[in-house]
Amino acid sequence: MFRINEDYLKLPGSYLFSTIGRKVAAFQEANPDKRIIRLGIGDVTQPLAPAIIDALHKAVDEMAHEETFHGYAPDLGYEFLRSAIAKNDYQARGCEIGADEIFISDGAKCDSGNIQEIFARDSKIAVCDPVYPVYVDTNVMAGRTGVYDPEKETWSEVIYMPCTKETGFLPELPKEIPDIIYLCFPNNPTGAAVTKDELQVWVDYANKKGAVIIYDAAYEAYISEEGVPHSIYECDGARACAVELRSFSKNAGFTGVRLGAAVIPKEVKCGDVMLHSLWARRHGTKYNGAPYIVQKAGEAVYSDAGKAQLKEQIAYYMKNAKVIYEGLKSAGYCVSGGVNAPYIWLEAPKGMTSWEFFDCLLERANVVGTPGSGFGPNGEGYFRLTAFGSYENTVEAIERIRRI
Amino acid sequence: MFRINEDYLKLPGSYLFSTIGRKVAAFQEANPDKRIIRLGIGDVTQPLAPAIIDALHKAVDEMAHEETFHGYAPDLGYEFLRSAIAKNDYQARGCEIGADEIFISDGAKCDSGNIQEIFARDSKIAVCDPVYPVYVDTNVMAGRTGVYDPEKETWSEVIYMPCTKETGFLPELPKEIPDIIYLCFPNNPTGAAVTKDELQVWVDYANKKGAVIIYDAAYEAYISEEGVPHSIYECDGARACAVELRSFSKNAGFTGVRLGAAVIPKEVKCGDVMLHSLWARRHGTKYNGAPYIVQKAGEAVYSDAGKAQLKEQIAYYMKNAKVIYEGLKSAGYCVSGGVNAPYIWLEAPKGMTSWEFFDCLLERANVVGTPGSGFGPNGEGYFRLTAFGSYENTVEAIERIRRI
Repeated sequence: MFRINEDYLKLPGSYLFSTIGRKVAAFQEANPDKRIIRLGIGDVTQPLAPAIIDALHKAVDEMAHEETFHGYAPDLGYEFLRSAIAKNDYQARGCEIGADEIFISDGAKCDSGNIQEIFARDSKIAVCDPVYPVYVDTNVMAGRTGVYDPEKETWSEVIYMPCTKETGFLPELPKEIPDIIYLCFPNNPTGAAVTKDELQVWVDYANKKGAVIIYDAAYEAYISEEGVPHSIYECDGARACAVELRSFSKNAGFTGVRLGAAVIPKEVKCGDVMLHSLWARRHGTKYNGAPYIVQKAGEAVYSDAGKAQLKEQIAYYMKNAKVIYEGLKSAGYCVSGGVNAPYIWLEAPKGMTSWEFFDCLLERANVVGTPGSGFGPNGEGYFRLTAFGSYENTVEAIERIRRI
Repeated sequence: MFRINEDYLKLPGSYLFSTIGRKVAAFQEANPDKRIIRLGIGDVTQPLAPAIIDALHKAVDEMAHEETFHGYAPDLGYEFLRSAIAKNDYQARGCEIGADEIFISDGAKCDSGNIQEIFARDSKIAVCDPVYPVYVDTNVMAGRTGVYDPEKETWSEVIYMPCTKETGFLPELPKEIPDIIYLCFPNNPTGAAVTKDELQVWVDYANKKGAVIIYDAAYEAYISEEGVPHSIYECDGARACAVELRSFSKNAGFTGVRLGAAVIPKEVKCGDVMLHSLWARRHGTKYNGAPYIVQKAGEAVYSDAGKAQLKEQIAYYMKNAKVIYEGLKSAGYCVSGGVNAPYIWLEAPKGMTSWEFFDCLLERANVVGTPGSGFGPNGEGYFRLTAFGSYENTVEAIERIRRI
């Protein structure tokens, strides 16, 4: 008699955004006349930039002719895209990353969910609290997180690093030594960013303790301040201890196009074994490459026209971030984030829980945000709004919230 | 100190097609004047059909405007595509499969590699021998296959079902009862097909023993004979024991476009738990959907124009299959497959091993095929050729082989 992976059953409730989706659908059905504004899930709303549209059309045309048709992509991604990433995102910033250390994928969510597979089953992970749920849930599914405490909403075998108002929403080095440390800066959900000096402390710690850092850099394009690193490889020694995950979703609006990359320097080793080899083996065995047309779209992100157009797109969203941040702050809300990140993290007012505030905003302002408690126990009492709406909707949403 | 997943290190050598790639590259470098014809990896060569190209262009245009832009896709795939598959591939054949039992993915390789995750870690798998390497390798990586015997080229905890000349290259029911049975018909690599009555025996067996069948239907579009099932759900009782994997790679030339689907009927259960729920959870947590433009391309496969154009494309490749089959047969080779499948399975002549014949064909005919031994010990002495080349190349390749 076949049996299932029992670890799946340990996952409490369903994925955060599915729950939100159900609540919003129910509200809309009961209130068909209300125009809901969504500043919740972090999906972008601006269309693809013209340079990317052009690249897609050209690539589609190539697929229409035998001489230029492209079948299976190289396992690890097309050289043209891996080189563009290495050159523009790394070498141009003085980071020593080669094209052959970059693995193209269909997105950072998949990479951040799958990367745990190449580590020992009894590895101990450390995560920020609050945290992007995928890091923890995928480790639960792999049987790595011990027993769930429904009171505390924590797993017995996970090291939590609280990110609270007191710590400026940044984690402190854990007391217990982890094997794998998940970091995401600029952070989802809090929007907090680290300076290069602060990140260097983590790299030094990881190298000293023999830990590996999974560094999620999905939001680096939103960094506006000097001294905030765009890549962990700006830190000395990161090539020996860090894997970096990159996304095209937020810097180029690819949430529905699907493209990402994992950077695994050849120096990250366990004994003689490079993590690079294991990930290559995983890619070759379980994955068949991102679509050719999508990889061509990714290449266009790095063209001169693409860069200019995407700079404008980022500026558009960051203008929204400012509207949210300043609008709520001046209304007396306690807000953070939004300066180097498209996320604004605010305290629910009057001691409300996160879900109480979610319901309040949905019912009274018809605005959807994300309850902070969905990201971990230290997210309780907080709320995430995203800058990815249209400008008009963002302005209206903030006006509605101010009127509550 | 972080540690790796040691199960990865148990994998012997590298992935079959990577090895072939290296051998071919070395030969080409040493012989730059030789024109190599590839009938190996099973990649298609015909351009995308016009109806699909049109759909792609239209979808790209939608992504260029805010009103029609598409961000994150629904976790399990767009309704329009799930419905098209349910209607055309199932309901039209009298199979009772609903759109909500279909999960869209980026390809059958990923699905067939990932599906093992939702089963218990100590599940016992049964595979055909020879077999598509992904089924076994992904179970090795999950620590499910025991110890490798390099002499026999088998794993201690895998049940092998020999597919030999004596069995018509079809498997027989295993003596030891498996939890999970991987079947692929029409078969890769042998090109063998089962009748509906023969498949019914497997469905009955699985239901009786409480096993689940992972049915890879990637090649169903190549079926030319009556009585050969296009889906396992043509068999009574399959809804209670079978998961079916579908690919757009071979029926629509999507090897470089990436689209697939897994069908998990809600009746496949372990106790109270539906496999459907586990796979939905996996999709929601580790995957972010196939690109919108690719799902629109998939929808076009089921349009009237798409169907007509793809029927021609399949006929083109099956004409190649006939050229290979008849050309080699009349030259004295022992061949099978090629009637309901794009694969021709031939015996290496004069007692050569599979790799000896590979080297012989590469050096003397400059033709690349796939050594049967790469698919398992019972593939030794056999060789796979695919019908996915151009007609001209296929004719020339067979002429060259006949001249050896």
